[in-house]
Amino acid sequence: MTPLRFPSNLPLRAVAFDEDQSMPHRRPIDAANDFVRRHIGPSPQDIAAMLATAGAGSLEQLVAETLPYAIRHREPLKLGAPLTESEALAHMSELGAQNQVFTSLIGQGYYGTILPTVIQRNILENPAWYTAYTPYQPEISQGRLEALFNFQTMICDLTGLDVANASLLDEGTAAAEAMALAERAAAKNAKAFFVDADTHPQTIAVLRTRAEPLGWRIIVGNPETGLEGADVFGALLQYPGSSGRLSDPRAVIAALRKKGALAVVAADLLALTLITPPGELGADIAIGSAQRFGVPMGYGGPHAAYMAVRDSLKRSLPGRIVGLSIDSHGQPAYRLALQTREQHIRREKATSNICTAQVLLAVINAMYAVYHGPDGLAAIARRVHRRTAVLAAGLQQLGFAPTHGNYFDTLTIEVGDRRDAIVARAEAENINLRINASSLGISLDETTTPATVEALWRAFGGSLDYAAVERDAGDALGTALPAALKRTSDYLTQPAFQDYRSETELLRYMRKLSDRDLALDRAMIPLGSCTMKLNATTEMMPLTWPEFGSLHPFVPKAQAAGYHALFERLETWLAEITGYDAVSLQPNSGAQGEYAGLLTIRGYHLSRGEPHRKVCLIPSSAHGTNPASAAMAGMDVVVVACDAHGDVDVDDLRAKAEAHSADLAAVMITYPSTHGVFEEHIREICDIVHAHGGQVYLDGANLNAQVGLARPGSYGADVSHLNLHKTFCIPHGGGGPGMGPIGVKAHLAPFLPGHPAEGEPLNGGLHGGGTVSAAPWGSASILTISYIYILMMGAAGLKRATEIAILNANYIAAKLHPHFPVLYRNPRGRVAHECIIDPRALKTSTGVTVDDIAKRLIDYGFHAPTMSFPVPGTLMIEPTESESKAEIDRFCDAMIAIRREIAQVEAGRYPIEQSPLRHAPHTAHDVTSAEWTRPYPRTEGCFPAPNSRTDKYWSPVGRVDNVYGDRNLICSCPPVEDYALAADYARAAE
Amino acid sequence: MTPLRFPSNLPLRAVAFDEDQSMPHRRPIDAANDFVRRHIGPSPQDIAAMLATAGAGSLEQLVAETLPYAIRHREPLKLGAPLTESEALAHMSELGAQNQVFTSLIGQGYYGTILPTVIQRNILENPAWYTAYTPYQPEISQGRLEALFNFQTMICDLTGLDVANASLLDEGTAAAEAMALAERAAAKNAKAFFVDADTHPQTIAVLRTRAEPLGWRIIVGNPETGLEGADVFGALLQYPGSSGRLSDPRAVIAALRKKGALAVVAADLLALTLITPPGELGADIAIGSAQRFGVPMGYGGPHAAYMAVRDSLKRSLPGRIVGLSIDSHGQPAYRLALQTREQHIRREKATSNICTAQVLLAVINAMYAVYHGPDGLAAIARRVHRRTAVLAAGLQQLGFAPTHGNYFDTLTIEVGDRRDAIVARAEAENINLRINASSLGISLDETTTPATVEALWRAFGGSLDYAAVERDAGDALGTALPAALKRTSDYLTQPAFQDYRSETELLRYMRKLSDRDLALDRAMIPLGSCTMKLNATTEMMPLTWPEFGSLHPFVPKAQAAGYHALFERLETWLAEITGYDAVSLQPNSGAQGEYAGLLTIRGYHLSRGEPHRKVCLIPSSAHGTNPASAAMAGMDVVVVACDAHGDVDVDDLRAKAEAHSADLAAVMITYPSTHGVFEEHIREICDIVHAHGGQVYLDGANLNAQVGLARPGSYGADVSHLNLHKTFCIPHGGGGPGMGPIGVKAHLAPFLPGHPAEGEPLNGGLHGGGTVSAAPWGSASILTISYIYILMMGAAGLKRATEIAILNANYIAAKLHPHFPVLYRNPRGRVAHECIIDPRALKTSTGVTVDDIAKRLIDYGFHAPTMSFPVPGTLMIEPTESESKAEIDRFCDAMIAIRREIAQVEAGRYPIEQSPLRHAPHTAHDVTSAEWTRPYPRTEGCFPAPNSRTDKYWSPVGRVDNVYGDRNLICSCPPVEDYALAADYARAAE
Repeated sequence: MTPLRFPSNLPLRAVAFDEDQSMPHRRPIDAANDFVRRHIGPSPQDIAAMLATAGAGSLEQLVAETLPYAIRHREPLKLGAPLTESEALAHMSELGAQNQVFTSLIGQGYYGTILPTVIQRNILENPAWYTAYTPYQPEISQGRLEALFNFQTMICDLTGLDVANASLLDEGTAAAEAMALAERAAAKNAKAFFVDADTHPQTIAVLRTRAEPLGWRIIVGNPETGLEGADVFGALLQYPGSSGRLSDPRAVIAALRKKGALAVVAADLLALTLITPPGELGADIAIGSAQRFGVPMGYGGPHAAYMAVRDSLKRSLPGRIVGLSIDSHGQPAYRLALQTREQHIRREKATSNICTAQVLLAVINAMYAVYHGPDGLAAIARRVHRRTAVLAAGLQQLGFAPTHGNYFDTLTIEVGDRRDAIVARAEAENINLRINASSLGISLDETTTPATVEALWRAFGGSLDYAAVERDAGDALGTALPAALKRTSDYLTQPAFQDYRSETELLRYMRKLSDRDLALDRAMIPLGSCTMKLNATTEMMPLTWPEFGSLHPFVPKAQAAGYHALFERLETWLAEITGYDAVSLQPNSGAQGEYAGLLTIRGYHLSRGEPHRKVCLIPSSAHGTNPASAAMAGMDVVVVACDAHGDVDVDDLRAKAEAHSADLAAVMITYPSTHGVFEEHIREICDIVHAHGGQVYLDGANLNAQVGLARPGSYGADVSHLNLHKTFCIPHGGGGPGMGPIGVKAHLAPFLPGHPAEGEPLNGGLHGGGTVSAAPWGSASILTISYIYILMMGAAGLKRATEIAILNANYIAAKLHPHFPVLYRNPRGRVAHECIIDPRALKTSTGVTVDDIAKRLIDYGFHAPTMSFPVPGTLMIEPTESESKAEIDRFCDAMIAIRREIAQVEAGRYPIEQSPLRHAPHTAHDVTSAEWTRPYPRTEGCFPAPNSRTDKYWSPVGRVDNVYGDRNLICSCPPVEDYALAADYARAAE
Repeated sequence: MTPLRFPSNLPLRAVAFDEDQSMPHRRPIDAANDFVRRHIGPSPQDIAAMLATAGAGSLEQLVAETLPYAIRHREPLKLGAPLTESEALAHMSELGAQNQVFTSLIGQGYYGTILPTVIQRNILENPAWYTAYTPYQPEISQGRLEALFNFQTMICDLTGLDVANASLLDEGTAAAEAMALAERAAAKNAKAFFVDADTHPQTIAVLRTRAEPLGWRIIVGNPETGLEGADVFGALLQYPGSSGRLSDPRAVIAALRKKGALAVVAADLLALTLITPPGELGADIAIGSAQRFGVPMGYGGPHAAYMAVRDSLKRSLPGRIVGLSIDSHGQPAYRLALQTREQHIRREKATSNICTAQVLLAVINAMYAVYHGPDGLAAIARRVHRRTAVLAAGLQQLGFAPTHGNYFDTLTIEVGDRRDAIVARAEAENINLRINASSLGISLDETTTPATVEALWRAFGGSLDYAAVERDAGDALGTALPAALKRTSDYLTQPAFQDYRSETELLRYMRKLSDRDLALDRAMIPLGSCTMKLNATTEMMPLTWPEFGSLHPFVPKAQAAGYHALFERLETWLAEITGYDAVSLQPNSGAQGEYAGLLTIRGYHLSRGEPHRKVCLIPSSAHGTNPASAAMAGMDVVVVACDAHGDVDVDDLRAKAEAHSADLAAVMITYPSTHGVFEEHIREICDIVHAHGGQVYLDGANLNAQVGLARPGSYGADVSHLNLHKTFCIPHGGGGPGMGPIGVKAHLAPFLPGHPAEGEPLNGGLHGGGTVSAAPWGSASILTISYIYILMMGAAGLKRATEIAILNANYIAAKLHPHFPVLYRNPRGRVAHECIIDPRALKTSTGVTVDDIAKRLIDYGFHAPTMSFPVPGTLMIEPTESESKAEIDRFCDAMIAIRREIAQVEAGRYPIEQSPLRHAPHTAHDVTSAEWTRPYPRTEGCFPAPNSRTDKYWSPVGRVDNVYGDRNLICSCPPVEDYALAADYARAAE
């Protein structure tokens, strides 16, 4: 029977395919089941009312006033008619059936694992977790911050290092970040980095790609012999090796230290429960993947990578770090620490463009450890190791001695010309192995059973009984872990890893944490530039089907036919939507997309013999990742001014393009601009840059304002990244995962990323785009989300969504302008899909800050808009098309009420310091204190909005003290007493 | 590819079956993945500490002191070793693959439907909804009470009647309840009930079974001709008929009214969006199933049935009714209304033993309507009807004229001897039809596509094109709904059915409601007799797999092979656990189980020529459903006294058994007793009753204290029901669903329930057990939950769970006794799995009531224990094995803190009226009011427990006024203004 994955008995064959386009289209069945009206917030009646408020006669008129005529795309997108939700799930079920779920023993950084169902249902499938935003507003993010703090504690404990970040994109990227950190931090000024030849090949590929534009040399070799005399700033050792080899790296690490170079260890977390951690071996940095702690392989991702460093390196650690600080009442509170390190602050001086984490996955990893505890993790590790030892003993009996005598979970077996026969027999047993030139790799994991081991023996030509082999091997099974590497130190002794061993306790812990946070399942998150739209349930469902979740990224392609059909169609759709000719799905985040996109430009210029073209023009209004990515791509940033309207100063651009004409590589421009406006001169800008031999990188962060209305590839851009986690509905997951595919015009297509697993290590050499992610198709499993979204919206639905996103923003601008001036508009008075409101004059008159407004919104039950970006002291609001008029009105009412509170300061009713604005957010303890001496009533503090009687969101902490947290950095669970101590200290200091 | 349903790539064949027992058993893989330790709260260290507190040297010693030696079952249960969670899911995946999901067009009360995924994920798969208890404590149940209020509003609007209850078990049962109501309410004293021959056969079977013991005659016939001269108290009309026939029942209803008889209409909710509702036709009562509003068929259930009545009948309406009242602040608040009607109050005077509802399913039904709104529902109905009309036109072309010219969604087609050929061709198209003697029934539904209609035509021998048939038929398609029956009245105009049309809005509405409630995902629910244990996620997962969800209950058995393998094994296991010889899975609730069990006893006595044996002895401590069920089974209740220890007064029992020796039918006894104690004399009691020719009905409500330790069938009982929603982990769903299978000794097996779909209408005639549920295996789909639970616990795990349930209760008794006396213990000082604490002396000294204690517990973040049952003025506490020591300690600390608060009243710190006890629960508005004149601080009111700083549960309303609500009964959404009016009125009255 074909599996049915959807909750009704709709016949499977309801989805037909248009022969010509190879895209599913819908038989016109049922307008009532139309997904478009579920995705879009306002009803038809609401739309009419909102148009009236916004002063537009129709949606078409509004759009005409908003987008420059010159860029409009007037034909319908070639995407076909939409499917209903049931039809889409039926279609996904058929696609899934085209993937074959074998037992993967490929290893190489990806392992079978068991995601406890209680975590699957209550985190991965729970909108309270997956729709949350990045925890920039710490007061409403205490739950996921605590979960990430647990993640960091787990990484510190398992690696034996001092400070860990809250995750990175994947192991390959983490290795590249570690290399860059080593280059900055090393005592010497070398320009080469050594890489253990026994490192996962995809990691080496990512390192090579990252090193080349920066002028660093990658030396791949045996560190025990090859390091001597090498002038390197650091080295990366895989521990245990990619081949399974487990050797003692202490001598190598000591030698590196002597050289003034840094030692990076790429370590397997499960192995670290049994073997000496990198920190105790002397390493400076540890990186790796946390995937096997409960996260499905997903044909490559998303997974959380980790990075931990010695204390002395903590201020150079890339990525996000959760720290413990105190709130306005001196109580402990979590927050993102050391944010001044981040790319959006440091811009072209940034040494990394990392601006996200894999929060949702890191939370799952942490909960996996919380549920198992140290004993449970060690028991899993011991079981995996023992099975591997039994496997080795059996293989030995069959005449296949493993290459390495010391190993944890992975064996390499020389098989010579018997390779293909063994592989074929293994495939007949539904087992995938790692296939090398003359050897095979076998990695066992948490899911491996004795039956699998017996099947492996059959593949190697023998019929052995697991129990018999185990019995016969006896004490010999205990010798594969060298005594010198046996772990002796404790780990995960903190209460979080001890107290939640029953499902009931874990369930309540997860609920408690999620209740502290405010996500899209409770209220609008009006974040400018972040597009917090509906993440529909149907879009989320196939993700946790085994047919999509259980595939190793390096399985034979034939086993992933469903995935590849999806990739091909999604690439076609994204190209159609953007007007580009080719798309790469590899980049794992928006910033990775920028970087990969710039690499295509770099490759293009190199291929034309113009290696000197390195100047990248970037408007002053750009997001900080733009210059950071340009720096990583080896480019020199030249800043272009903006005019008083916030638009790019075309004259300045022209002047700078001329000045750098010979060396001009590119312009990076965000469109519509980060100011939330469709600039009129975009075609002219493109033409100027092209005239000087440059390429146009158009940042796709604001594509939500264009889909169906305009196509970057059609109005002059050469390359863009698309934030699938913005426009195409991948949820933010509390701060990751994301996906940043890039689209390019045909001339850049040869320089798109490649991957060693695809047989094109650097896509044809140095001129290719290299490898930017560990997995060939990035975080493949979440591509299903964007795919289903497009499938259910169709061309007309996508266009309508864009129109409503623009309407919602212009409606807000119209409602709020009388109270807070709207900063930028186009010549016809229109904003795009977001708007900036400007309370700076109020700060002058009353002292009220954007922080006060943002925190006060929490009392009203809302997440704050984007603060001080792109203009310091302002707020940028993006409603998206998914918010209803009722919710937008509620938000505007809150903003207007806050304006009235500011007026009370102006009128002298209370000073700003004693106002509800400054005391925001009000906690329940705050407003129930015995004493109340403030000049406003308690209820005015906590119940400013009419609907808060039964459905009040209470901030769990008062306003968080950022300075205190950075001064007293605590990034992993301290002994419980320290929390109290920190609070005491703070109170004493008041 | 075989479908994989579980979240890892564990090989499918990990689960093997023991050839002898035909039960799965586990290869000894992995103690670390043992589910038992996830299900059981206390850790091994906790257990040692708790034993010390309870004064027991070991678990075995504790058990020996708790259970009478004479009843102990000393061998291990024959259930095999447990499976891990992954193995269990792999096994369920294999079972599911043995079910075949065809398109069902069988109709007969069960239809394909689309459960919106956002409702599936966020209600059906969300522990905040499914682990909630029955809303007896209204303050912490406002969310689901509002959802049920929406359900009632929906039923009232669609049926055109005045008052609806919050759901009943299934359509058959609802019909039986309507019949009983009609008998009570009819103006005349007739003893017969007329049933439209065009009623679903299973409904007729349930009616026959229910009528027989009560001495009522069922007359089945054509109401348009057969009613004349019939002396009936009421009649039931199916509307539209089971055959699809749609006729105007106005004349029949008027004739009934003239007779003084009541008209019951069994109506299809979807049809009612288009046709005149029963209330407008003159009907007194409407009943039916709400299944097709989004609830999967599940091979029979669970589904919500509905019942609505004219206003004059509202105080006779069985089941639960949600009403709007006000709270202590005069604000609107929901509650269960008119509870004095309920069986637990009226006992043997009860006219129904209904003591539950199908809350979870009714909530889904309501949300389905909320999401679609009236327009969406009508659009679905129109589409279904139009497809049916096109189908009819095509069949006509093929020479098959439908029997009835007027229909909604169902056609009956005379096919004569071509029947089997058509059925075979339909099966080849994966379509099931309703098979009658010489005709076929076809019911379309929301999921029917044109492709299905075309496949049907092929089955009938023709190759027609849907679009062509539709075009050719033209206006003729509009004639099947008679003009006289076209609906003209509005429905679902209330805001709840208008405001949540986008997924975002619905998601937030569902989250908002669930946040108002307190369920097992946030805190212990220490309800005596209700066994609120862990409902593990893994147990819940297969439920929403289509292979279990999408089967119609009357498909050919071969298509349900997976289900039947499960039934067979589950029956075997339950028999092994209870010591019985046979098990019926049909009863849909505990009370239905009691009734079905008593029918086996009745059947047994009748079969032996002893129809006079009608006396049923019931101890005074019994749950109120016991006498109510006995009354329904035609028995006469004789109450047996209890002694000062709460035990059955054996002398009184002996005396009454002797006095009624000739007529003794049975004793109904709960064991361990409702007082939470294993009485010493249970064997003696059984012997006495047997000696007088009676049978022993042992109420299985407290089986959680016995599994693995003692077996009712082994120590003297003849029949028991098992609450699968207590001992066997089916979640309470906020007040349903449940399952109440019965186990019997061999001599009662011939009298177990039968079912017309199984070819045994009354299991061989009047002496059989009849049909007690609409579906042959009751709520089949949730049997998966109990099955998986047993599978993952194994014999040893189940026994350990029982031991820990007893330990937890004795630990609480030891901790609380110094503060509140524990009322009943056995001679060795032990309680069973629950204990009663007695604050009655405190009431005398301080005025504190159990209500005060219960409501005050809400401020501490806990659901109250069972109040005033079985002993008025006391509290009964059952922790279950799933609560950890930490949570139990937190609960005990709360109780002890409350005792200290009572001491403050004793000490005169505050009078009870001004105490935090009486003002409980404290709302956020309460403690932030400008004025605070109470003699305790605000924070003492709302933050009595240490952990409430960040994780406080706020009661959304103050203490609910029950009297006001019953005096001013509002059971469906009034116009919005009325809420304010009610509150004003209440304030004025203060």
